[in-house]
This record gives sequence, structure tokens and C-alpha cells, in this order.
Amino acid sequence: MNNNHLKQCDKLVPASYIKQAEQSCTSINNLISHLLEHKKIPEDPWRSDIIEALLSSLSQMDSNNFLSSCGAGEREGRIFSELVASRNYRLAHGVGRSGDVTAVQPKAVGSSILNQLCTRIVLDIIRQVGAETATSCIIVPMATGMTLLLCFLTLRTSRPKAKYIIWPRIDQKSCFKSMISAGFEPVVIENKLKGDELRTDLEMIKEKVKHLGSENVLCIHSTTSCFAPRVPDRLEEIAKICKENDIPHIVNNAYGLQSSKCMHLLQQAARLGRVDAFVQSCDKNLLVPVGGAIVASFNKDGFIENVASTYAGRASASPAIDLLITSLQMGLSGLKQLLKQRKENYNYLRDEMCKLAEKHGEQLLATPHNPISMAMSLSTLAGMEKHVTEFGSMLFTRNVSGARVVPLDSKKTIGSYSFTGYGSHCDQYKCPYLTVAAAIGMNKDECQLLIKRIDKTFTEIKFKNNSAKNKIPSTITQSSQLNN
Amino acid sequence: MNNNHLKQCDKLVPASYIKQAEQSCTSINNLISHLLEHKKIPEDPWRSDIIEALLSSLSQMDSNNFLSSCGAGEREGRIFSELVASRNYRLAHGVGRSGDVTAVQPKAVGSSILNQLCTRIVLDIIRQVGAETATSCIIVPMATGMTLLLCFLTLRTSRPKAKYIIWPRIDQKSCFKSMISAGFEPVVIENKLKGDELRTDLEMIKEKVKHLGSENVLCIHSTTSCFAPRVPDRLEEIAKICKENDIPHIVNNAYGLQSSKCMHLLQQAARLGRVDAFVQSCDKNLLVPVGGAIVASFNKDGFIENVASTYAGRASASPAIDLLITSLQMGLSGLKQLLKQRKENYNYLRDEMCKLAEKHGEQLLATPHNPISMAMSLSTLAGMEKHVTEFGSMLFTRNVSGARVVPLDSKKTIGSYSFTGYGSHCDQYKCPYLTVAAAIGMNKDECQLLIKRIDKTFTEIKFKNNSAKNKIPSTITQSSQLNN
Amino acid sequence: MNNNHLKQCDKLVPASYIKQAEQSCTSINNLISHLLEHKKIPEDPWRSDIIEALLSSLSQMDSNNFLSSCGAGEREGRIFSELVASRNYRLAHGVGRSGDVTAVQPKAVGSSILNQLCTRIVLDIIRQVGAETATSCIIVPMATGMTLLLCFLTLRTSRPKAKYIIWPRIDQKSCFKSMISAGFEPVVIENKLKGDELRTDLEMIKEKVKHLGSENVLCIHSTTSCFAPRVPDRLEEIAKICKENDIPHIVNNAYGLQSSKCMHLLQQAARLGRVDAFVQSCDKNLLVPVGGAIVASFNKDGFIENVASTYAGRASASPAIDLLITSLQMGLSGLKQLLKQRKENYNYLRDEMCKLAEKHGEQLLATPHNPISMAMSLSTLAGMEKHVTEFGSMLFTRNVSGARVVPLDSKKTIGSYSFTGYGSHCDQYKCPYLTVAAAIGMNKDECQLLIKRIDKTFTEIKFKNNSAKNKIPSTITQSSQLNN
Amino acid sequence: MNNNHLKQCDKLVPASYIKQAEQSCTSINNLISHLLEHKKIPEDPWRSDIIEALLSSLSQMDSNNFLSSCGAGEREGRIFSELVASRNYRLAHGVGRSGDVTAVQPKAVGSSILNQLCTRIVLDIIRQVGAETATSCIIVPMATGMTLLLCFLTLRTSRPKAKYIIWPRIDQKSCFKSMISAGFEPVVIENKLKGDELRTDLEMIKEKVKHLGSENVLCIHSTTSCFAPRVPDRLEEIAKICKENDIPHIVNNAYGLQSSKCMHLLQQAARLGRVDAFVQSCDKNLLVPVGGAIVASFNKDGFIENVASTYAGRASASPAIDLLITSLQMGLSGLKQLLKQRKENYNYLRDEMCKLAEKHGEQLLATPHNPISMAMSLSTLAGMEKHVTEFGSMLFTRNVSGARVVPLDSKKTIGSYSFTGYGSHCDQYKCPYLTVAAAIGMNKDECQLLIKRIDKTFTEIKFKNNSAKNKIPSTITQSSQLNN
Repeated sequence: MNNNHLKQCDKLVPASYIKQAEQSCTSINNLISHLLEHKKIPEDPWRSDIIEALLSSLSQMDSNNFLSSCGAGEREGRIFSELVASRNYRLAHGVGRSGDVTAVQPKAVGSSILNQLCTRIVLDIIRQVGAETATSCIIVPMATGMTLLLCFLTLRTSRPKAKYIIWPRIDQKSCFKSMISAGFEPVVIENKLKGDELRTDLEMIKEKVKHLGSENVLCIHSTTSCFAPRVPDRLEEIAKICKENDIPHIVNNAYGLQSSKCMHLLQQAARLGRVDAFVQSCDKNLLVPVGGAIVASFNKDGFIENVASTYAGRASASPAIDLLITSLQMGLSGLKQLLKQRKENYNYLRDEMCKLAEKHGEQLLATPHNPISMAMSLSTLAGMEKHVTEFGSMLFTRNVSGARVVPLDSKKTIGSYSFTGYGSHCDQYKCPYLTVAAAIGMNKDECQLLIKRIDKTFTEIKFKNNSAKNKIPSTITQSSQLNN
Repeated sequence: MNNNHLKQCDKLVPASYIKQAEQSCTSINNLISHLLEHKKIPEDPWRSDIIEALLSSLSQMDSNNFLSSCGAGEREGRIFSELVASRNYRLAHGVGRSGDVTAVQPKAVGSSILNQLCTRIVLDIIRQVGAETATSCIIVPMATGMTLLLCFLTLRTSRPKAKYIIWPRIDQKSCFKSMISAGFEPVVIENKLKGDELRTDLEMIKEKVKHLGSENVLCIHSTTSCFAPRVPDRLEEIAKICKENDIPHIVNNAYGLQSSKCMHLLQQAARLGRVDAFVQSCDKNLLVPVGGAIVASFNKDGFIENVASTYAGRASASPAIDLLITSLQMGLSGLKQLLKQRKENYNYLRDEMCKLAEKHGEQLLATPHNPISMAMSLSTLAGMEKHVTEFGSMLFTRNVSGARVVPLDSKKTIGSYSFTGYGSHCDQYKCPYLTVAAAIGMNKDECQLLIKRIDKTFTEIKFKNNSAKNKIPSTITQSSQLNN
Repeated sequence: MNNNHLKQCDKLVPASYIKQAEQSCTSINNLISHLLEHKKIPEDPWRSDIIEALLSSLSQMDSNNFLSSCGAGEREGRIFSELVASRNYRLAHGVGRSGDVTAVQPKAVGSSILNQLCTRIVLDIIRQVGAETATSCIIVPMATGMTLLLCFLTLRTSRPKAKYIIWPRIDQKSCFKSMISAGFEPVVIENKLKGDELRTDLEMIKEKVKHLGSENVLCIHSTTSCFAPRVPDRLEEIAKICKENDIPHIVNNAYGLQSSKCMHLLQQAARLGRVDAFVQSCDKNLLVPVGGAIVASFNKDGFIENVASTYAGRASASPAIDLLITSLQMGLSGLKQLLKQRKENYNYLRDEMCKLAEKHGEQLLATPHNPISMAMSLSTLAGMEKHVTEFGSMLFTRNVSGARVVPLDSKKTIGSYSFTGYGSHCDQYKCPYLTVAAAIGMNKDECQLLIKRIDKTFTEIKFKNNSAKNKIPSTITQSSQLNN
Repeated sequence: MNNNHLKQCDKLVPASYIKQAEQSCTSINNLISHLLEHKKIPEDPWRSDIIEALLSSLSQMDSNNFLSSCGAGEREGRIFSELVASRNYRLAHGVGRSGDVTAVQPKAVGSSILNQLCTRIVLDIIRQVGAETATSCIIVPMATGMTLLLCFLTLRTSRPKAKYIIWPRIDQKSCFKSMISAGFEPVVIENKLKGDELRTDLEMIKEKVKHLGSENVLCIHSTTSCFAPRVPDRLEEIAKICKENDIPHIVNNAYGLQSSKCMHLLQQAARLGRVDAFVQSCDKNLLVPVGGAIVASFNKDGFIENVASTYAGRASASPAIDLLITSLQMGLSGLKQLLKQRKENYNYLRDEMCKLAEKHGEQLLATPHNPISMAMSLSTLAGMEKHVTEFGSMLFTRNVSGARVVPLDSKKTIGSYSFTGYGSHCDQYKCPYLTVAAAIGMNKDECQLLIKRIDKTFTEIKFKNNSAKNKIPSTITQSSQLNN
């Protein structure tokens, strides 16, 4: 309904009423104008119908939705199913063009605006949560691992001789695969145990750089967000090494957007040294379904643009649609509230896990550098690795998802590489442990439920463990399960 | 509503009525059983509410939707926005795991089933449309170009020495980028002009293989679907060369699923020679939004599985959701109807374009090997390249999208590679031309509209062209536009 | 997106692209302008997203959706559930005001426009399908029966002495209840058998008018659409009687909008005599869910307005929303196509039923005046009334709904009134029969299925009937059912 | 997905994973079982996808959604538009049958279950909020006024001589129209001023009963929820009069469900005297769109059933769908929270209005018996009635909806009845006033906004008023508006 339409309604209802309605239309139009003007996450949440009206307007700007369109190509954005059309807001052309995933599509102006707008809003979010001097970002419709791979492929062009990627070990499979799938050789830097924490071995990095030769190193691939007892890498120092040695620095910030500490680390690293790009997951940080990642940078050296043009072809618009909707519906106020709540949950969970550990004769590992997750020793079960594993299964069966139980002797081969102590980020941690995270979107009820279930399950597994040691027949153990 | 629920309803309505309703529930359950049993595209279309009920059931099997779930990890599938949750059917975990894009996720059983089921249905479709002996496929949430790149990265592991990709020229940017982004050196095989057609230069391929050495060639990268006057590559012969020289063969079948001829070519190539994988776009063939591609194979050599495990990390479930919905809503009968209609449109368009060409003193180029697109010479405009380009713009302004107008002298640089005659698949085609396609989903009205608009616009541009030659002031030309 | 918004997008995508998109927005705006200007069913169907955009615009004009609204009353259109909000397009205030169901609500300008617009479109439809001189109509959120009741209540004010309603018998319960619930005494006019048809007894009507005295008769309540062998009332003659005797005439045209014959009858009656109002169901004629009816008139005497102001209070907007969506999505071309298809189905069904009747030694009753339904004798089953009834149940069990099997001896009491031969519109029809309709929206497949199922079921029931007569044990009969 | 389906999925994902998913399905099935078993509003809110799954299951039980249905009637629930189908969950048959709005439809078992279930849940809600001994209720798809009319029509059958309805005056148009549209003569009982409150004149009621004769009185029609300074009728005493005189008693409890005081009044009246039925609006109490009302009773005398069978014909299922969704999504806990919040808002608003009144030299009228609304005198404006009216308009223009400004001298004619002081529930209240309500669903922000806007607007109107008295040119006043 534009102003002409409103005037036409004069014949249906009194003109004075129309005026009141006009005011309302104007205020909604102002909301949209403000968004298009500032390209930032709005302070206050938007109502869902206004978001959908915006998406509908954008989709009308794509050629497949023109009333008199006539498609003579091989890709005309035709959608067979009404269900599919409707759930995609009739945005059929994806984002980007064959040469560049951020390029504007002449056939799909609405989708192009959506993508540009969403990218700008995401950049604003990145700045708001701590990377204040970030200059640009792109959204790619792939998970973190593939996005890291894309960054490595991008670096290759400018470093044709480089074969190695220096990588402080983090036992997360897709990180590792991103390097080998891209055709590079990971140089694993084992972590150093400091107290209970596993920290970056800076000396070893320096040594490797020297030994391999800067020009043969594609980049250093560091990590912020990780599971305790590993803690975020010493980003500042790594960034300095990179700067000094003229080596690119790619940071895996998978779920670090939600932590002001991780973001502060990044910001400092960029200030003091070199950070070429940092990569984060959309789903882990912004509560959207799996499917997209964000590559961001503090520089204006064109790296982000090169990443975009390394992506060969168009991409699904789904991640951008989900992100745009979510950021409008959340608003900056909502986002800040979520971040605040996450911190509170972290503190609550740490305190409760501490009590729980004491109760069971275990201890909460001291990992003050890890702002998101924490670990409790399972020393009681040491030597009975199958009970450690079973503890994990039991938690999963009781609908505790995401809690990781890490035994001591796990081995793993990825490609031609073998790891000892896989899962613990080092060859041999001092004890098996359980690690849990306080991630964004968790609520307090969940924290309480988590504590309760761990308590109950651990009690049970210890009973089993003792029974096994004392060879009490297992039927008794089983019956105790049934009463659960 | 299961049978117990129905029984409980006895207290609300007479039992005899319940029985009738039970019958209906049973028949819908049978539909689902049949799908799960056979894992094929159903013969008849499904109603949209039944499709949504299936998706809703699947989503209830993902841990983020468990009533008593308690998430302690960093990725728990939490969705902030109800709009986003609803448009994704609350399927938040994507598909695949960090090590393999087809792996089953313990946290997301429903999403995993959806992906497996969808993959099996897509395989059935591939067989139904002509690749009868195809053995496996995967759906990847990337466009054709990136998917080709993934195939090349996969081949690298088993051919560590290989640096070259032999590539019969096709002027489509993302195809070319897929090779250079992956870090390989494309060896361009220029096409040979036979009559009006541009065909594969088999001799040159053989020569290059010999010259480079088989072990240095990563693969031959051929193409089926393409814009006339280029025609599909001589797949059978290429496949034989590959077999004889032990070189992998990756086929870009971007929009070839819709053409029985392209599929027949592929099937024959596999029978007579070597085809490692063929890649096709979901959107161009199956009328879903941009976002996914399919890698398929005739072999059981594990290549498809290797591609899946080269993809580092999870992927968006959106392409699989769109594909599943579409194939259920289309049914085999609907698909066949669309393919039939496409062929009819092709014939209709060819005949009408032929008449149009004659009317304007041009000719429809004879490209019998191209089953999807056709080209009309623009010899009238030869020598006035800016009018050729303007003709294209005018068509676009009149909402004709996808028609390509190809001038003679176009130059293009991609990465460090330069092309002459870019767009025409050869250095110098004999005339500028207009090319249009009869793609799946086009309807007859569109064909007629297309002919009409080309006619009108060409008349106009010829008038301009003549005016320019005769230096008639442009105001007259403009006024003729206004009467349009 | 208004023009200012488009201009703002200049910073996100090239201005030339925006121009193309602007064109598209304009063409959609023109569609809406045309609708608001002419207030008629559009010639061509609208796309669903444009319909939803219109509804969304309208809902933004209601005060409950104002961004800064502040509600201090007892009814502020607040909606608790997002699901409910979304399915009602956030239109919460219903239609009408306490004094008049068509009144404009200051608080709900969008809802008011929607209702006015919908009413005008419905009036256009009524004219298009045959009541060319209809002058006004209203949509009421009640079924046909309650709407007739509302008409009777409205007439009471101007005819305070009137106690009787003259009513040519039609065995449809809600018609009858509409009169007694309103507090009037129905004067039943039994139908006369002419050939196979049951037709209006005009003499008896005249006699009753004379006997009761015009001023004591509230109105004559006639019927168009009905089940064969009853046929539409002699509307022209009744209308003349009404005119001559100064008695109002209310026509129950429940599902007559779909039949040009019924509409012609109405138009002629209005031309030659008196028709105060005709009432029709929304769901039966316009393929929307049950819930609304339309009262229409040929006159400008204010009767329709009086009906509107007799309805005490606001009403659900649902019927108007469903009607508006449907008429836009159908378009006049779609409506005409449906009407044409219905006629073809009627002819097809009549021919096939005729063959079927012959095959089974029955006959299709000759009811040429009934344009929608037809009846087949069940003389074979005469005397075995329980088999007649069972035949009906069997058809229902086989998912044939709506087919009516009418035995001879049915009795029914409604309120204090008793009917013999209830269901057959007369005390004693000459044979039991089966009646089926060719209603709007039925497709040819359904017709064929119907014939097939009647054939099969009748064969079976005849076998049972014969078995019963010959006392063959029922087990045999049952086994034949299993093979079905 | 039933258990068989899950088993079939064994071939797609490991059986152990299926087991976990099965658990989740079971817990959701248990939720549904619990609902069907107890037929009460669930304690905790349901998730929207589970609600939609339930609705989808129900709709599959309606014959129009049978896979092999074959419709041969005139009403087969066919829906033309997918939009309409989807927003109505494909529930097309409405509720009730021609003879009874609560009757089960053989053709529409799912809709019938939905309606029965919803009715039972609503009855549970009525009991939970205070009418503990309520025995039955029905949902009717009409607003409060029409529903009262239906009650009066129902009473007529058993009281054929009765012509009068005794009605303590409440200036709400649809209440009054419900009586005259039904054909009865309202006997208006003027309210008595006690302090600031307008209360029921019990003596006058008794006198009228005596004067008219019990048998000539159809019923007493009392009111609970109303705008201050009128307060709820003396229900207990009226109920006793009804009992003693054998006169039916219908209570208009329009928005009283939200107030424990109104509900307590009703419960007491039923305990001590006679209450035949009490009628309430769905939208005003349960935050759904306008469209339905609830008739409830404390008795088992069949009155509710008679009301249901007086409604002639089917009814829209929309109100029941909206109510069912809302009650499931709200849960008892949500409902209680809303009621608690409403009380808090009432207290807050009363305190703030009191301060505001003092500030402006007015007073908050003392109306302790009115639990929902309150009134502030506008004595300052007395004698300048056009300023009183203008004050109302100005509030409305500033998006304050629902606040009523009541001048002294308003006259109104409804039908043949004339009222003086219309709007104030009495011929001449002591001062003009402003009345506002604290209704369910209002939030604290709105309360604060309301106070602020009233303050600002009243300041302005007083300035105008003074200016007018002092004849200051109006331009000054206007400019002050601009600064607003």
C-alpha cells in the first residue's frame, strides 16, 4: 500500500480514518528507511510481519518474480513447489555470481540487496561484540571447516611456494581436514600444559617458522574458541610472530563471537600483530541453523574480496535469509541480553560444577582463560576407560547432548595423520575428564537440568565402577538403572 | 495421532466415525512406508500437508527438538527466531559431520534420515532420466563450480603429482574458476568449428595427454550442457581416452539432467570408457532455489565417498529440504511431464526462431547436437558491436532474462588467463549471435512472449543500426521506443 | 519498499539495476491500484505472495499493529499466539461494529477496507454469474441457516403482526430451523409430483396466502438449489405472488451461485416479481471453508442494510479473508473455468449414471429442471429398506461422501413438527433412490471414481438383497466383501 | 512417523540412533495422550510445531483430506486456494451440523474432535478462573451480542408468552440490540448512583417483575464487566430474584473471564440464586481475534444444549482453531501469569491515574466494585462539551485506543428507543469523565505510555479550553501542538 493506494481507499472508508492508518504505514516505512540508511542491527527487535514484508518486497525485485518476466536462460529461478517458494520467500537466485560470491546479480536485485544488507549488519554485530575495528566481512554458505579451506585456497595464489600450515593442535576434525583437503601439510604444534590449562607453545611455533622458512608457510592457523582444558591460543603473540615473519594469520573463531574475551583477544592481536582473517560459524554464534560461516578482517588489503572471488559460483541465500531475519528479530538489545545471560550461565555453571566435583571427589579443572567451557576431572574412573566412555553414552541417552567425556588413550587417524590422546588436544592429559560449555541461547533451567543429570549419572557410573572392581554381579547395577 | 490417540478420541466422537478416520490415517501412513521402503521418487505427487507432516516428524527426531533436551555443547541447534525455525522446519543441525558431509549425526537423527532419503530419491531421479546404471550420488550445499572444485581437491590425494586439468573450452566463469581456485593449471582445448557447431577437438586432447604425461594430468574436465553454437563434448571418445590413459574424468553436467540426450551421452560414456563423476546443479534441473549440486557416479570405487569426506564440516540442510519437498510434490509423473513439455518447447522455439531469423535476414545456426539451446546469427549487426551489446541490454530491459547476445570481439581475463572471443567458446566465431534456451519449467506462453519480444526488439535495433549508418538523428529512434 | 527505499538501495547495488526492480514494483502496485479502483474480481489470478503482501499492508492499518499503539480499552486486538496472529494476518478486530456488521471500525481501518473490498468483489461475482442487476450484498460470518434466520428477524420489525412463513417443503434441517428458531410458524407447502420431478405447488401457496392474510405472513421462503428429484422452486411465479400480495420474498439460494440456471431464475424472478433477498453459502459456491454466507438483493430499499444492522455485534473476519484470497487467486478466468467444468461434469455424470441405471435395471429419474444434482431409482431394493440404508453406509465407508440414499419411510420430528418421507421432500415418493450432485470444484477423475464405486457397491448390495431373499448364509456375502 | 516407520529408517541410520529418536516421539505422543485423556488446558505451554502437528493429524481425519475421497454432495470441503487451505489447516467443514452447532459431523471427524476438545478445554479454563462449578459450555462463532440474541431465542420456546427482558442499563449497543433484534422489549432499569458508582437498582427490578408478571418476562439480562463508573450488577441479589420468581437469568460476562472478582460474583450468584447462562467474548478474554463467544452454565438442565440446537446450521471452525492453539500455547501457567499481570497493571494504573487526576485538579472516581476499569473526572472541561469530545479525538490521534471520554449530554436512539446521557449508563452523571481499562494482555510499558499521553493531551486541551474562555486566538494553540 503506497500513498496512492491509501487515497484510493477513501471510497471505502472515511478519509479521516485513512489518515490514522497512513501514520502507521509511515512509521513502518521509517523503520525500513533507518535500516537501509544505517545498515546496522536495529536497536530494538522488529516484529515478524514487518520482517516478512521486507523480504517480500525484496523478492519482488528479483526477475523470477516480475509479472511479465520471460526467461530464456538455463537458470531462471523457477520454483516448482509452492512450499519451497514460500519457505524461501521466492528468492530463487541465491547470492553471488559465477566469479564472486558477493557480486550483485542483475537478474536478482532483491537477493543482492538482501545479501549486501545482511553482510553489513553482520559486520556491525562483529564490531558491537568486540572487534571494533573490523573493516569487512562476507557470509559464505558453508560451515567453518570449508570456509577455512576457502581461506587457504585464497592464500595459495599469493604464496605459490607455500606448502605448510602451522597449527597449534585443536582436536576438532573439520579444522584439520580444512588444511589437508586444501592440499596443504599441517605442522602440528603440541600444546603445553600450564597448571590445568593447555596453552599455545609459542617457542615451538617460532622454531618451526625458522626451520621451514617463512615463504614455505602458507599461514599460521590459530584457534580462539575451544573446549577446556585447552584455552584460546595466545593470539597476540602469534599475531606478532606472523607480522615479524610476514606470514599470514588465519584465526578459527568458530564460536567466539559470543564471548567478549575471544573478541578482545582478536582485537588485540590485530592491533599488535597480524590477523588476515577470522572465521566464525553463523549457527554457533547467532542461533540460526547450520549452514553459513562468516569471514571477517581488520584490514583493507583486499583479502576478504579475494576469498569471495575464490568461491566459484553462486551460493544458497538461505544463510543470509536466516541471519537477516534473526538479527532484525533480535535487535541489538536482544543480542546484548543473550550475551549477558551467557556470561551469567557460565558463572553459575562453573560454581555448580565445582560443588558437584567436590561432592564426587573430583575437581573442576582450573582453566580461567577459557571463557565458554569448563572441565571436571574423572579421576575416579581412571584406569577403567570403558566406564569413562560409558559415562558419555549414558549422558547422551539421558538427552544431555554436547557434553564431551574424554578418556586418556584415544587414538585417531585423519588422512595420513595419526593422533594420540585425540579429543584432549594433547598426547596425554593428566586425567580423563568431562567438559561442558555455557553457550549462547542456553537458559538457566537447562543449566540446572544439566547439573542434576550429570550428578545422577555419575553416581550411577561410580557405582558400576566400584561394582566392577568388587565383582558384584551386574544385574544389581542394571536394576538400579531401571529405577532412574 | 497414533492408534492409541484415536482410541482416546472415542470419548469425544462415536467410535464408528473414528474407524473411518483411522482408514485415512492408515492410507497416509502407507504412503510414508512406501517411501521409506523404496526410497524412490513417488509415482504420484504428494499433497503439501503430508509432506509437511513428514518433515515435522523428522524434525522431532533431532535432539534440539526433544522435549527434555539439555544442551551442553557449543552447537545445540538452538534457533532464536520463530520465523527461522518455522521456515527450516526446526531442522537446525544441517547435514553431515565434521569429517564427512554424508555422515549420520547422532544429535540429529531426523536430519540424517532426511539427507539419506533425499540422496536416494535423487539417485532414483538420475536413473529415471537416463543414467540408468548410476550407483551413487551425494548432494552438496554448493553451486556447480564449487562442487567441481571439491571433486578436483578429492582427486589430488590419489594423484599427488598431477598439476594439469585438460579442459575443452566452455566460456562459463565458475567452471574455469573451479580449476584455478583448486590450485590446478587448466589446459584449454579450443573447440573446432564443424558446420555451425563448436565441437570437442579430440586430437588436441590426445596430443596434450601425450605431451603432459598421464600422471601429471589430474583429470579431463568435460561438459555436456552448454549454450549453442557450442554443443556437448564428445563424451564417449573422451571417456575412452581417459580409460586408455588411466586419467580420471569429471563431467560438468550442469543442467543436463533435464535432457535425455545429455544423460544418454553420459550413460554411453560410462559404458564405453571412464567417467569418475558427473556434477549437476539442483536449481537448474529440479526447479529449486540456487544452493545445491549433485555429484553422481556410475562406479563403486569409493570416489563419491571420498568427495563426501573431503568436504570439511557440516552443511546446510536447505538444499536437501528443498529437493525432498520438490520431488515429493512433483512425483515421477510430474517430472516426466516437465521433461516432455521441455522437449516440445525446444521444438516449438526452434521452429519459431527459424521463422524469425528468416524474416530478419538472419539464420538459425544449425546445432543439432545441442538439445537445450539454439542460436540465431546477428550478421545484420556485424561490425556494429555496440549495437549487438545494446540489443542484449534492450532485451534485458524488456524483462527477457537469460538470452545471451554474443559479440565477436569480447576479451576476458580470469586470474592470470586471457580469453579472446569470450562468451562464444572460441577465439573468433563467424558472426555475432543471440542464444536462447528451452529449459525445464518454461511454459509455452513464455516461448511465445520471447519470440514476440525478440522480434520487436530486433526490429528496433536494426532501425537504430540503419539510422546510425545513415546518420539519422537519434530523437526519431527514441520516439519509436515510446510507442512500444 | 517505496520509492525512497529503492533510492536508498542505490548504495548497495548499482542504480541501473534498481531501475529494473522499480519497474517490477510499479507493475505490482498497478495491480493493487486497479483492484482498489474497480473493486471487482480481477480478470487474471493473482500470485499468492502479492495477495499476502496486500493483506499484510491492510493489517498494518489496524491499530493493534501500530508501532506505538497504546490500548486502554477492553478489546484491543491483542493476540497471544504467534501462530494465531500469523494465520489471521494479524487482523484481530473482526469486521463491523456493535450496531452494524458492515460498519467501518475506527480502530481497524485495514480490516474495514478488507471487508468493504471483499463485499464489492463478491457483488461483482454475483453479477458475473448471472444476477446481473444485483445491487448490494453483505457477507455474514454464519452458515446459510442462521443467515436466513437473520433475514427473518430483520423482516419482523416492519411486519410486527406477521407470524407465518410460507415454505415450499425442502427437507434440509437448517432451513426449517431458521424459521422456528426465529420464532415463526412455518406453513409447509407440499411439493407436487410432475413426471419424476417434485415441483412447487403454486395453487397451495396462493390459497395459504389468502387464508392466512398477507399481513400475517412474514414472507415466502423459497429455494433454488436442492437435491433431485426436487427441483428449484417456481421462482418467477412465487415472486409475482409476493408482489401482488405485498409479501416479502426470501430465497434460499444455498449453492445456486454455481449454476447459471439458478441465477437466471433469480434474475427473472426479480424482473417479474418481488425478491427481497437471496442467501447463499460461501463454502458451497466459492470453495472456501464453512463459515460465511452472502445475503444479496436486487433492490435499493435498504433491506440489506437492515439485515446488517440487525446483526448485533462484530463478526469474525475469517470468511472475508478467505473469500478475498480466493477471489484474487482464482480470478474471473478461473471462476469461469470452474463453472464450465461443473457443467461438463454434470453432463458427464448424467450420461454415466444413465448407463449405470440401465445396467442395473434401474432408471435415472427425469429431472431436467435440476441443474446440479440427479437421482437414480433404487426400485430393486424396494421393500428392503434396511438394504437401502445399508447401501448408503457402504458408499460412505468406501469414501463416497455426499451421495444420499433416500428410503421411502423415513420419519423425522424437528421441534414440534413431524415429517413423513423425510429426505425425499414429499410424504411418499414413488421409489427409494440415490441422489448425487455435480458440484463446483469436483473433477472428472472424481466423477469416474464415483460411478465405479456406485457400480461396485450396488452390485454387492443387490447380491446381499437377493441372498437375503433366498436365505443364503451371510458368510458368503462377507467373503465377497473381502475381495473388494 | 509411527513405530513401523521408525523401524524402516533402520536402513538409513544406525538402529541405536533411532532408539533415541523414538524416545522423543514417545514423549510427544504422551503429551497428546495426556491432552486427549484429561481434556484440560495443559499446565505448561506447548511448542508451536507440536500444536501444528496435532492440527495436521486432525485435518487428515476429515473426509475432504482422505487420499481416495470422492465427493458427490453439495458441500465437500473443497478449498480452491492453497493459502486458504493452509491457514485453515485444511479444516474445511466447519463445526456442527444443520441441527446443532455442537453435533459431530460424520464427514469431518477431525473437525468434530477439535471442537469437542476445544470446548472441554474452554470449560476447564472457565473453572480455573473462578466459576468452579460450571458444568458445560459451547463455543459459538459469533460476537457476544449475537450470542445473547441466540440465548434469548432459545428461551422463547419454553416461555412462549414472554415479551419482556428486564435489563439494568449498560450503554453498550450490541447488548441492547441483542434484545430488540430477537424481537423482545427491553425494560430498562436505570442505575442508582452510590458515591461515585452506578449500581443496580434492585428495588426497581422487583417492582418491574411484579408489575409485568413473571411469565411475561423472558429473563433478566444482567452484566458483570462494564466501564467505570458503572460497576458489575448485584448478581447475587438478581439471581435470588430470578430464583424466587422463576425467571431465567442470562448474564453478559463479556470480558469478565479475566477478572477473578467477576467470576466470583457469577459463582456466588449460581450458588445462591439462578443463573441460566453466562456469555463471554473469546477475543476480550483469551487474546484471540474477534469472532467467537462462549455460552456457559452451572446447571445440567439442558439449556446449553438447547442453545446449541437453536443455532441453525454449521459454523466456522476458526474461533475453535484459534482458541485451541492459544490455550495449548499459553498453558495454565501462562494464563495465570497473564491474570496476575493484569491485576498488577490495574493497581499500577489506578495509582498513576490518581496522581494524574490530582495534578490536573481532577479526581479519580471511587469505583472499588469495578475490577477492570477506572474513570477520571473531567470537571475542568464541564460546560465545554466540545472540548470533552475533542479530548477524546486527540487521544485517538495519538494512538491511544479504547479510552472513552464521556460528555454529559449525549443522546442516542437505537431502534425505537431513546437514551439520554448515552455512554454514561445513566441519564445524567455528575461530571464528564475519561475511562480506561486494565485489560488482559496489556503490558506495563503500555500503562506508562498511556499515563504519559493522557497527561500531555489533557495539558493541551486545558490550555485550549482556557484560551477559548479567554478568547486567545487559536493560532497559538495550534503552534503548541506542533511542538508535541
